[in-house]
Amino acid sequence: MANYVPPVEDMIFLLSNVFDFDRQMAALPGFEEVNTDLAASVLEEAGKFAAEVLEPLNRSGDEEGSRLENGEVVTPKGFKEAYKAFSEAGWSGLSGDPDYGGQGLPRTLQILTDEMVSSANLSFGLFPGLTRGATEAIGHHAGEDLKALYLPRMISGEWTGAMALTEASAGTDLGLLTTRAEPQDDGSYRITGTKIFISSGDQDFGGNIVHLVLARLPDAPKGVKGISLFLVPKFLPDADGSLGARNGLSAGALEHKMGIHAQPTCVMNYDGATGWLIGEPHRGLAAMFTMMNAERLFVGIEGLGVGEAAVQKATAYAKERLQGRSLDGSRPLVPIIEHPDVRRMLLTGRVLCDGARALSVWTALQMDIAGRHPDAGVRNAADGFVALMTPVVKAAFTDFGFETAVLSQQVLGGHGYIREWGMEQFVRDARITQIYEGTNGVQAMDLTGRKLPMEDGELAPRFFALVKESLQSAALVPGAEAITTATAQALDRLERSTAHILARAEDPAEAGAAATDYLRLFALTTLGWCWTKMTVAALSAGADAAPAIRRKPALAAFFAARILPQTLALEASILNGPDSLMALTADDF
Amino acid sequence: MANYVPPVEDMIFLLSNVFDFDRQMAALPGFEEVNTDLAASVLEEAGKFAAEVLEPLNRSGDEEGSRLENGEVVTPKGFKEAYKAFSEAGWSGLSGDPDYGGQGLPRTLQILTDEMVSSANLSFGLFPGLTRGATEAIGHHAGEDLKALYLPRMISGEWTGAMALTEASAGTDLGLLTTRAEPQDDGSYRITGTKIFISSGDQDFGGNIVHLVLARLPDAPKGVKGISLFLVPKFLPDADGSLGARNGLSAGALEHKMGIHAQPTCVMNYDGATGWLIGEPHRGLAAMFTMMNAERLFVGIEGLGVGEAAVQKATAYAKERLQGRSLDGSRPLVPIIEHPDVRRMLLTGRVLCDGARALSVWTALQMDIAGRHPDAGVRNAADGFVALMTPVVKAAFTDFGFETAVLSQQVLGGHGYIREWGMEQFVRDARITQIYEGTNGVQAMDLTGRKLPMEDGELAPRFFALVKESLQSAALVPGAEAITTATAQALDRLERSTAHILARAEDPAEAGAAATDYLRLFALTTLGWCWTKMTVAALSAGADAAPAIRRKPALAAFFAARILPQTLALEASILNGPDSLMALTADDF
Repeated sequence: MANYVPPVEDMIFLLSNVFDFDRQMAALPGFEEVNTDLAASVLEEAGKFAAEVLEPLNRSGDEEGSRLENGEVVTPKGFKEAYKAFSEAGWSGLSGDPDYGGQGLPRTLQILTDEMVSSANLSFGLFPGLTRGATEAIGHHAGEDLKALYLPRMISGEWTGAMALTEASAGTDLGLLTTRAEPQDDGSYRITGTKIFISSGDQDFGGNIVHLVLARLPDAPKGVKGISLFLVPKFLPDADGSLGARNGLSAGALEHKMGIHAQPTCVMNYDGATGWLIGEPHRGLAAMFTMMNAERLFVGIEGLGVGEAAVQKATAYAKERLQGRSLDGSRPLVPIIEHPDVRRMLLTGRVLCDGARALSVWTALQMDIAGRHPDAGVRNAADGFVALMTPVVKAAFTDFGFETAVLSQQVLGGHGYIREWGMEQFVRDARITQIYEGTNGVQAMDLTGRKLPMEDGELAPRFFALVKESLQSAALVPGAEAITTATAQALDRLERSTAHILARAEDPAEAGAAATDYLRLFALTTLGWCWTKMTVAALSAGADAAPAIRRKPALAAFFAARILPQTLALEASILNGPDSLMALTADDF
Repeated sequence: MANYVPPVEDMIFLLSNVFDFDRQMAALPGFEEVNTDLAASVLEEAGKFAAEVLEPLNRSGDEEGSRLENGEVVTPKGFKEAYKAFSEAGWSGLSGDPDYGGQGLPRTLQILTDEMVSSANLSFGLFPGLTRGATEAIGHHAGEDLKALYLPRMISGEWTGAMALTEASAGTDLGLLTTRAEPQDDGSYRITGTKIFISSGDQDFGGNIVHLVLARLPDAPKGVKGISLFLVPKFLPDADGSLGARNGLSAGALEHKMGIHAQPTCVMNYDGATGWLIGEPHRGLAAMFTMMNAERLFVGIEGLGVGEAAVQKATAYAKERLQGRSLDGSRPLVPIIEHPDVRRMLLTGRVLCDGARALSVWTALQMDIAGRHPDAGVRNAADGFVALMTPVVKAAFTDFGFETAVLSQQVLGGHGYIREWGMEQFVRDARITQIYEGTNGVQAMDLTGRKLPMEDGELAPRFFALVKESLQSAALVPGAEAITTATAQALDRLERSTAHILARAEDPAEAGAAATDYLRLFALTTLGWCWTKMTVAALSAGADAAPAIRRKPALAAFFAARILPQTLALEASILNGPDSLMALTADDF
């Protein structure tokens, strides 16, 4: 099989030609030195690491899997060394707080790096990804002592992190969780309970493992307003950070999963483990959401990453596999990439991935602006866009990633079903991204039920105005007509659907029934916007541009002609309302 | 997890209330004794066998898998005994030729039985399924001696069958195959070559294994016109059928697959194995297609079967899993089946499966009519419908089955990703049905490129006329308005798309570019027709009908409101034509 080729050229095109990265960074205090040249060198190195160190462990990691030996996790061959190399090269702290040893680079570069790591080895990527999420929750909500002790070691990658939320009876509905925290005289807490589905719950890389655990204090109110967040390390560290006694937590079992076999997803038992409160009592969910929002974007990028890797390999296969006659019948044996239906599959994956990458860059830029822009109004506006896009990126990118993996597997025919070829692993691995960090249905309800009403219902329209602005200027560009027109039509459908849902906000079934279709309609329209911007930028880059840039207008035309028509169906389905979903009683099912 | 419940009530409803089974059978010589009562008792027994004997081996079979020991296949624990019980109960010969010991029952009952076996245990179902396919090819094309020796033992299930087509470099394009057949003085042939992806290539049930192998004679023309079909048994039988010497074929390896782990998919080596010609020299592909068409319908039914099993389990889970508040906020903890987005997933699976089952019954009835009706005109008309529906059933049912499995897995959230719950196995198992027996892309091209032009382009319109007839009479039925109107609109889209493709038959890119979208448009419209017929039948069955019948109009309303809108997008995509697919050169990808 072909090796993964990091799409750095495309990333640089997005930064420099599409999203005006240098000018954006120049406006952000602390990022004045960041520009496309710096980005290029970071991304080149990250891509090299992903392709040369992480990808070679992807198939073998899947076959070997992580396992539990005498209560301790053993990761697959090579993971330990790769993790060490990853940390030593500084990738763990790329966007980490410089006050605690991080490099303080923008989210924009973090998210592009995340994509390449996810393409190369999804199971591996969860280790630094969850560590970063835990780092952010501690950074935002923990006291100074905990920060000083934990953050430098987590940002360096020496210690890893894990999020311990889910219990057997408390998944989407965290209000049901029963893990208890009892205050001790020394200010610490004793944590007791069992959590399931804990990614990176244990590892054999050495160092400490910092669990962020949701639990209830003795006086906690019922439901989500009685949940507190605790830092529970595997080893109790001294004040100088050297590892002390083993804490009372252990991996009781590893989950047997469909995919991400190399990733040790643990059933975690906390048996009176010592922990420390992070943030206010009973306000743990808010603190955890700091981590979860970043994680949700990260999971969306995981979906994109797997999709990109899959479509690359399918494309390489389709160029080499000889089967069937040429369309005009003149050549008896041609590469299958000549067949229209194979092209349909490859192009679908390609336009979904390229479009999603563009949207990921824009969203990350909004995060950087929200975090640093000197103007509070600009910060707030960007923050609203991040809130709006978080469920879209998480759900749509993981759906697109899975769909791309399935289509790419299909390109290989029977070989796609055979493990050795690696395509079926992409399908199994991508599948988890649609489920964890809040299922995609939960994301869709977050979009229709919580994000649409924000800013008095003006958040989404504020984004639509931005899209219209782009479309108006693109309408004047020769060669961009098809994508501009199709996106404008999709936007009309999205606006009508938005108004329909907001007008019926008093009916709780409406937002729920529309949610999944609406999120996809929103995502496809937004990708249409990204394709419009890319087309305009590619056309002005001229005929000398790199092949990956020159092909953008043709890809946009495919997106317009063969993908955007889905928005017709989605609008019709949304406008048909919830009645047909709610007619049956539960017994009738 | 809930056990599989065979949908026999729904099957009987389809036979008796929707498709007038008794009257249809009465018109077919040899089936005069067949009626709904007989069907009910056969299906009850088949369902019981599937649920009680086959389903309990499904998860364990997946975990254990088939393996190769000293060159011989060992199937998972219990498979041998289950296969013996299956054959002894007479299921192997249900629709088999009575001249060779079969029960001679209609395809209609065979296909419904196949669905239940596939729901319970897809890997198992391939053993009798492939045996039946091989039996049919032998029955149609082999000489009397071979038929007398092989058919009774295959129809009884004592011997099993396998189809050996694919080679490493010859998949979709069978013209590339290189396996050789050299004539011997005694009239037999020596077969030499290696085949891959051979389902049921070996087993440990005892008896013989009858391989139907495609190979080239020494004087064969190149390409598909130089392929002949050979019967190559694992053991060389005496004239009385007792097993003699081991023939020169062996399973060189088992494929490592994404799913159907219990099924021994073999790399088969034929090292000068003795075989006998079936049919004419160089006409093997035609003979094999007898088998492949029946197999394609069977594979479609496999997709339906897995989907049905998956949606049943997701529904049972959704009724029990408590998570989240009721829609009106009044109850703090409700079964997730109350949430609109969960209903969307379950209802989508339910309407796809019920609709597909209806179409499978209609298609099987056409096969029965094509095989037995005294009027040649009626036989030919039915045969045309079978030709038209074969790619639709194969591709759409397996797509629907996979989509249903994925949605059903999603209903379980994180638990859906864990092996113990069994949902992820449905996804892995269903995936192969979209690939084998001709990928779904190949099916779609068969529909647009070969089936549409049949009968001078009048085959599809002949079917559309039948649909219109149903819609006209349904339009008068109170309560059937929504599905009738939505189906009529879908049919308009399908007719326009059909005309568009036929009008551009001279452009080979057109039919290929439209194929996958067109097949789905065709399938959804046809399912709309089935839902219209079911609605009318259910409404006239009245309020006393069983719950599974009474809910049909509400399910049809969901299909109309939330599934049929897809036809809007499919038509738009088809009418946009092939240009955007063909614009890039292969290098540009």
